[in-house]
Amino acid sequence: MNSKKSNYEMNLNKNAANFVPLSPLSFIERTKDVYPNYTSVIYGDRTYTWLETYNRCLKFASALERHGIGLGDTVSIIAPNTPEIFETHFSVPMTGAVLNAINTRLEADTIAYILDHGGAKVLIVDTQFSPTVKEALVKFKKEILVIDIEDPNANLQEGEGERLGEYTYEEFLEKGDIDYRWKKPNDEWQAITLNYTSGTTGRPKGVVYHHRGSYLMSMGSVIAWNMPNHLKYLSAVPMFHCNGWGYPWTIAALAGTIFCCRYVVAKDIYDLIVDHKITHFSGAPIVLNLIANAPDNEKRKINHKVYVITAGAPPPSAILERMENLGFEVMHVYGLTETFGHVLQCAWNEDWDELSIGEKAEIKARQGVIYPMMEKIDVLDPLTLEPVPRDGKTMGEIMIRGNTVMKGYYKNKEETEKSFENGWFHSGDLAVMHPDGYIQIKDRSKDIIISGGENISSVEVENVIAKHPAVSLVAVVAKPHEKWGETPCAFVELNRGYEKTTEAELIDFCKENMAGFKRPKNIIFCELPKTSTGKIQKFELRKRAKEI
Amino acid sequence: MNSKKSNYEMNLNKNAANFVPLSPLSFIERTKDVYPNYTSVIYGDRTYTWLETYNRCLKFASALERHGIGLGDTVSIIAPNTPEIFETHFSVPMTGAVLNAINTRLEADTIAYILDHGGAKVLIVDTQFSPTVKEALVKFKKEILVIDIEDPNANLQEGEGERLGEYTYEEFLEKGDIDYRWKKPNDEWQAITLNYTSGTTGRPKGVVYHHRGSYLMSMGSVIAWNMPNHLKYLSAVPMFHCNGWGYPWTIAALAGTIFCCRYVVAKDIYDLIVDHKITHFSGAPIVLNLIANAPDNEKRKINHKVYVITAGAPPPSAILERMENLGFEVMHVYGLTETFGHVLQCAWNEDWDELSIGEKAEIKARQGVIYPMMEKIDVLDPLTLEPVPRDGKTMGEIMIRGNTVMKGYYKNKEETEKSFENGWFHSGDLAVMHPDGYIQIKDRSKDIIISGGENISSVEVENVIAKHPAVSLVAVVAKPHEKWGETPCAFVELNRGYEKTTEAELIDFCKENMAGFKRPKNIIFCELPKTSTGKIQKFELRKRAKEI
Repeated sequence: MNSKKSNYEMNLNKNAANFVPLSPLSFIERTKDVYPNYTSVIYGDRTYTWLETYNRCLKFASALERHGIGLGDTVSIIAPNTPEIFETHFSVPMTGAVLNAINTRLEADTIAYILDHGGAKVLIVDTQFSPTVKEALVKFKKEILVIDIEDPNANLQEGEGERLGEYTYEEFLEKGDIDYRWKKPNDEWQAITLNYTSGTTGRPKGVVYHHRGSYLMSMGSVIAWNMPNHLKYLSAVPMFHCNGWGYPWTIAALAGTIFCCRYVVAKDIYDLIVDHKITHFSGAPIVLNLIANAPDNEKRKINHKVYVITAGAPPPSAILERMENLGFEVMHVYGLTETFGHVLQCAWNEDWDELSIGEKAEIKARQGVIYPMMEKIDVLDPLTLEPVPRDGKTMGEIMIRGNTVMKGYYKNKEETEKSFENGWFHSGDLAVMHPDGYIQIKDRSKDIIISGGENISSVEVENVIAKHPAVSLVAVVAKPHEKWGETPCAFVELNRGYEKTTEAELIDFCKENMAGFKRPKNIIFCELPKTSTGKIQKFELRKRAKEI
Repeated sequence: MNSKKSNYEMNLNKNAANFVPLSPLSFIERTKDVYPNYTSVIYGDRTYTWLETYNRCLKFASALERHGIGLGDTVSIIAPNTPEIFETHFSVPMTGAVLNAINTRLEADTIAYILDHGGAKVLIVDTQFSPTVKEALVKFKKEILVIDIEDPNANLQEGEGERLGEYTYEEFLEKGDIDYRWKKPNDEWQAITLNYTSGTTGRPKGVVYHHRGSYLMSMGSVIAWNMPNHLKYLSAVPMFHCNGWGYPWTIAALAGTIFCCRYVVAKDIYDLIVDHKITHFSGAPIVLNLIANAPDNEKRKINHKVYVITAGAPPPSAILERMENLGFEVMHVYGLTETFGHVLQCAWNEDWDELSIGEKAEIKARQGVIYPMMEKIDVLDPLTLEPVPRDGKTMGEIMIRGNTVMKGYYKNKEETEKSFENGWFHSGDLAVMHPDGYIQIKDRSKDIIISGGENISSVEVENVIAKHPAVSLVAVVAKPHEKWGETPCAFVELNRGYEKTTEAELIDFCKENMAGFKRPKNIIFCELPKTSTGKIQKFELRKRAKEI
């Protein structure tokens, strides 16, 4: 190869006609043009067409811009799956700004941290979460425009429902101009969303998604899951979780209908599936449990095939079998917040059609093979970066390369560089490679507990418990749990004079200091196993936790 | 917006883990890993799996590289649809080189021109075409490695079948190394193929495709045409025509099976569709004619739905109706060589389900709306670049923006710049915009005749005819034709003293000097209509041609 330019590089440059930055916003523009009257969203008795959704997004975007929001700004939202959070996946990036959807289950302190770290200028909040958010705003201290979503479908508890802002979502939207000309990104590398995920450190890290990745994720999912045009899709995955695995944009590309589900309860899911003939559905294994084990009076007979993807933990074979008998075809997928959602899929091979349900479940428990838009995922020895042998036994770390990998962690150069060391994204998941090229996770190298589909940082939980005067040393690990997948389990060494401290006492202490889903379900008092250098052997504790 | 960098642009750069140049070669790599034993190609009694196809491509690529082929080189092929031309869509770019698939119907002179202009270093040729290619190689004069495809299915005529090169395709392939490490492009803007198309000038222009575009074309087609995984696809479109509209790569992405069809004859098509349950099929309107009008003893009863796309001319309503009764669902699409194939599709809307077959045909005759991977296609006033009113009447030019638009014309800066003027690709097709946003072509501003799906340059035909001593002035335009869509029709002014020249005489002259499909079917002697400045009014001649 010589360094002289070939004729293929001469006078054949990119220009406005042959190179347009990729953005999932293109999908909604095409769909409102081609299928303006097709249904975009159904939520309770609210129904919108694609043209209506597009116009609502335009007006909301215009109102944001009039408020001064533009390129490089952050707009946060705390809401369950309703049409509003769906719309912000389009309206916020239409201004050039970045959408930051925050987990509704977080405690005030962490919400305040995220608002501050993410530099939010606007916060959209469903009034069900007003008690926590009010507290968070007190801690946040800075100026911010608050917009309230008032949802008549919300089942408000005492103290909930307070309006915190100047406008409701609808009032704010009406301030916008329907003739607003929204902004395509000038660069497909531009940030589109900011998703905080619990890392190994105490504070969550802000994962930055780019337009290119969200576009390609949407396209890849169509192939990975055989999604047809105009499909009916029910998301039991919160859109604050990896942007609902990118499906708000995928559904726009396919001119499908997305069904919002505020509360994930079996009866609603069955009713939606049967009444609307929903064909595609996604949810954490906990949701599969819910469906499979629903009481008979909540179940409905399903007469069509429903395709399900589930992620976060391998679906147990009993659940799989029950789901298949109910008419669901389940595919296990794997991904991380850092990878826009799924990047591995346990793709089915017709060679396995004749296997027993037990053998099938064993296969379906594997995380699988790469998604179509991914480039390379392998199990590598973390030291040598050589692929492990394909023996289903040798452990290595899952490492990832592709265009649906984050830009990096927001304002965190060190963690960004660490996660991208040697040109691979390091998943932190320890896995084996089977002879047929399917990957299966065996352990986790990062201190993360995944409970009900949510990441919990064990370090964060440890930091809280360590503040109790009785605690001398604490280590928190994941304990397998039938319903939640995993729950935090704490091992504690007590200070002298505090030997009478009880499990209940420490759990009460946790209740006051962290979100419910992060609380350890078990606290064990014992001497912690340590290495010769004094490092706690978490691997040993994980084994013990399993046996409890 | 201030010029200060936002935090979203700080320390969040592209790296090997989060940015990989897009290339359709990724698809075959994934598919041979995930579905190694699924069938890739079926041709007569030859069948390959994806792993076999991949390995054959690897070996062929390796052999090419050993011969010195690499980045920036051109490898040409002249072949009908057989596994070999399918494989070169992967093997040639695996070396970094550019695939140049040449129309098998071209005359020796044009083939020699293309080899020379494209700078071909290797020519792969199906021996059926040896007579023309032999002549072309004599004219070409330069050194070139010739590889022969010997196909036992070829129905050779006298003079055909001669081997012209050193190796057969299989011999050459066997020289390659199965452990060859192929090259992903370092830049997704890298050229992948070079497709010559008849332009308005006499010589064909070399349209350069890029990896990014071919990747996105493949993805977009999946959505546009609802293509499922593992589909069975029959291509009656030659792969030398816009790389078979990109389907060799799309089928790889979907781990489908591509059926090759050396000769496009009704009986073979019916047999393949019925015996293999083919669901997706593409071909020019002429192929639809062939199928719809096949004699009963060649027809077979089709008991499953077959989706068809057709391009080049609106399918006539009689053909549409006949096709639908036979079990085919036809979608009309539109594109150009310059746009990787289709960029408009006459997407169906359920509002039209209840219309009569005649009304449906009228709708299906429209070129339609943009493909999912396209960014903007509009009908603009060529002077003001303003969109024409959506009245279905006002004519403008179809202009195109998106990522499946060529890099430009190879070694032709002037034409490249002209075609991209003002940041739009100028299609040269005159169209109207209907109130519902569907585009319909009304005339062509470029001097192109589309006959049987192939572009013919009217200027090229004029140049040949003008060489006849009897001809004083000649203008060639398209004449509508039931079977071929259009055929060239020549209007000629004779020199003094040559008044007795006959139509047959000039047609004979054409036979000696141009490929069969380019020959005028009608030659009319008359005075040519001219503008006050002496320019021939082709618009007027097109009207006359219609009336003949």
